[in-house]
Amino acid sequence: MEAYFDNSATTCVTEDVSRAVVKMMTEDFGNPSSKHHKGVEAEHYLRQAREIIADTMKVDEKEIYFTSGATESNNWALIGSALANARSGKHVITTAVEHASVLMPMHFLQQQGFEVTYLPVDEYGRISTDDLKKALRKDTILAAVMYVNNEVGAIEPVEEAGKIIKDWNRNIIFHVDAVQAYGKLRIRPRRMNIDTLSVSSHKIHGPKGAGFLYVRDKAKVNPLILGGGQQKGMRSGTDNVPGAWGMAVAARDCYDHFAEDTAHLLELKKRMMDGLRSLDHTVLHSLPGQEGAPHIVSCSFPGIRSEVLLHALEAKGIYVSSGSACSSNRNLPVSTVLAEMHLPEDQLESTLRFSFSRYNTAEEEDYALEVLRELLPKLRRYTRH
Amino acid sequence: MEAYFDNSATTCVTEDVSRAVVKMMTEDFGNPSSKHHKGVEAEHYLRQAREIIADTMKVDEKEIYFTSGATESNNWALIGSALANARSGKHVITTAVEHASVLMPMHFLQQQGFEVTYLPVDEYGRISTDDLKKALRKDTILAAVMYVNNEVGAIEPVEEAGKIIKDWNRNIIFHVDAVQAYGKLRIRPRRMNIDTLSVSSHKIHGPKGAGFLYVRDKAKVNPLILGGGQQKGMRSGTDNVPGAWGMAVAARDCYDHFAEDTAHLLELKKRMMDGLRSLDHTVLHSLPGQEGAPHIVSCSFPGIRSEVLLHALEAKGIYVSSGSACSSNRNLPVSTVLAEMHLPEDQLESTLRFSFSRYNTAEEEDYALEVLRELLPKLRRYTRH
Repeated sequence: MEAYFDNSATTCVTEDVSRAVVKMMTEDFGNPSSKHHKGVEAEHYLRQAREIIADTMKVDEKEIYFTSGATESNNWALIGSALANARSGKHVITTAVEHASVLMPMHFLQQQGFEVTYLPVDEYGRISTDDLKKALRKDTILAAVMYVNNEVGAIEPVEEAGKIIKDWNRNIIFHVDAVQAYGKLRIRPRRMNIDTLSVSSHKIHGPKGAGFLYVRDKAKVNPLILGGGQQKGMRSGTDNVPGAWGMAVAARDCYDHFAEDTAHLLELKKRMMDGLRSLDHTVLHSLPGQEGAPHIVSCSFPGIRSEVLLHALEAKGIYVSSGSACSSNRNLPVSTVLAEMHLPEDQLESTLRFSFSRYNTAEEEDYALEVLRELLPKLRRYTRH
Repeated sequence: MEAYFDNSATTCVTEDVSRAVVKMMTEDFGNPSSKHHKGVEAEHYLRQAREIIADTMKVDEKEIYFTSGATESNNWALIGSALANARSGKHVITTAVEHASVLMPMHFLQQQGFEVTYLPVDEYGRISTDDLKKALRKDTILAAVMYVNNEVGAIEPVEEAGKIIKDWNRNIIFHVDAVQAYGKLRIRPRRMNIDTLSVSSHKIHGPKGAGFLYVRDKAKVNPLILGGGQQKGMRSGTDNVPGAWGMAVAARDCYDHFAEDTAHLLELKKRMMDGLRSLDHTVLHSLPGQEGAPHIVSCSFPGIRSEVLLHALEAKGIYVSSGSACSSNRNLPVSTVLAEMHLPEDQLESTLRFSFSRYNTAEEEDYALEVLRELLPKLRRYTRH
């Protein structure tokens, strides 16, 4: 049996999405910037993709910009809005548990003379809105809070944060990295006071190399990638029509079956959390049910190094992640997120992430739990003390 | 009959490439950063893609970095090398006929306090190496010369330029936008003293949303997109394995059949140039045979606005371009490149680009020429004088 529980790292592309991509690559392959009808046709698919995606969040299609993925989206939103608003101040707020594609642009901004406040988190990875209130300053121009933490599935208080930020100063750009939230939660950027929001296609069964950035109408954000002036000058480069269209098909799939899929994911999550809890010496880091994301379960197996367990599971056809797969720095000793949650060392070193998609089954989970039940005592016997 | 002569705007993806992309999307869909074997497998495809591409230019696979396309590659090379070398000087040289994805980053650098010298071109779009020699200064840190002009197919003296630049100062970064050259000419970055070189996948029958930047080992270039540290920290973001692998398959196709394809393209070019020359009042802007790129023919039809002719041809199933399709600013009155070539107004307004791929045929050309022979006198009768 095979059980792929690494869907927060990446997902397989569905048949529908694959067919959509192939059609755009081989039949309707025009360049949307071309003036003849092969161009107009391609442009039409782009607009439709924008409309489909905008509809999933009840925003305007003009507010959707296609990118090469969420890393570019986060870079663009953060660097583009900091540089566009630097005259109003040079203070930026974010959380200590953001993804590297937020943290690294923050370091870049620090090198450019910006000051960054990193909000701490509790033992489940959540910031406190009180800390956010205290961090706001007169010269704050940008605040970035991720929606769902990629390592433990914590849901950050995005809506409350948006209200607090805008009550303080409406001109602060509020950026949300929604990579692990989009398709799993209902997101309403307008009600939530979000100015820019990043999404990745390959986390929701869409093609890799595609993503988007929502940019609220009139939000002051500079472009990051310059050139032929595509996408109203906000993101140049020949539009990746197969990527955008494939992502739109995947996005529609998510939200067309949102209620059933969410119920299924929550069942999977409960079954896995109950099962893990029943094993000896496990420590769960994810909140149950809708208190956390429906598709992520983080668990420590003290006494067994996460990589050892990961490879032992792999040998049985079970795929999971230790820390985040989005960082290719494979030699990092521990996850920043778990460290920021102040986990004791033996938990830090022994944490695995199980992340689900709508295609996972209860049978796969039972199989994984059975394997774990057998493996854990054996592996613990080999552990150095 | 249908004749797609807009291959410099974009190309269709071949069956082989499409199959390669689908396999990476649906079967070998792992995230190369994942530690289990689905990740290792994906990483293996990435490495193989790098090797295939490196082999086409006889460089090292470590010098190939995947991007979302040539616009990102150009932005990265120019901004990344200017910022990395700003301490040595703030003077940059380029040509007046570069693609917008070079010219716009140049404008950005000017805003950042860099000084940019734009080299003029002759009536065929070629710079003079004497002008380049005169432009070099003690504080020059970067020079960017495109390989093949996208609008008229002019081949710039890249090899001579590389020698002149490095003879002056070995530390100057020499960037080459090779979007219209790669796959059509044999490129040897080492012999040509090239430090960074941009290529787009969708111009060579590869998927859109993919490209690469060659970065000579030890060349001082900052990353543009920051995050999880993929590609040795030089380009973060989950690797687009389907895009990279599809591009590699397309690149291999180009260079495995290079001699036959070049011969075929040169025949197509000659037939089209001869045919156009035989029509009344046409003015050709491309140099014949191997003096210019083998796949681009630029021609003015004085007395007929290019858009009028473009749409008349489109109605007959013939797809061409007026100016460059890479700029989505459809309202630009004339092409910058043609203006820089000092064409008279009646030629500026009436120029079309015919661009070929290896899949075009002599029959398609004969058909297009026949249609032109009928259309031109009719359209001239309607022209305002």
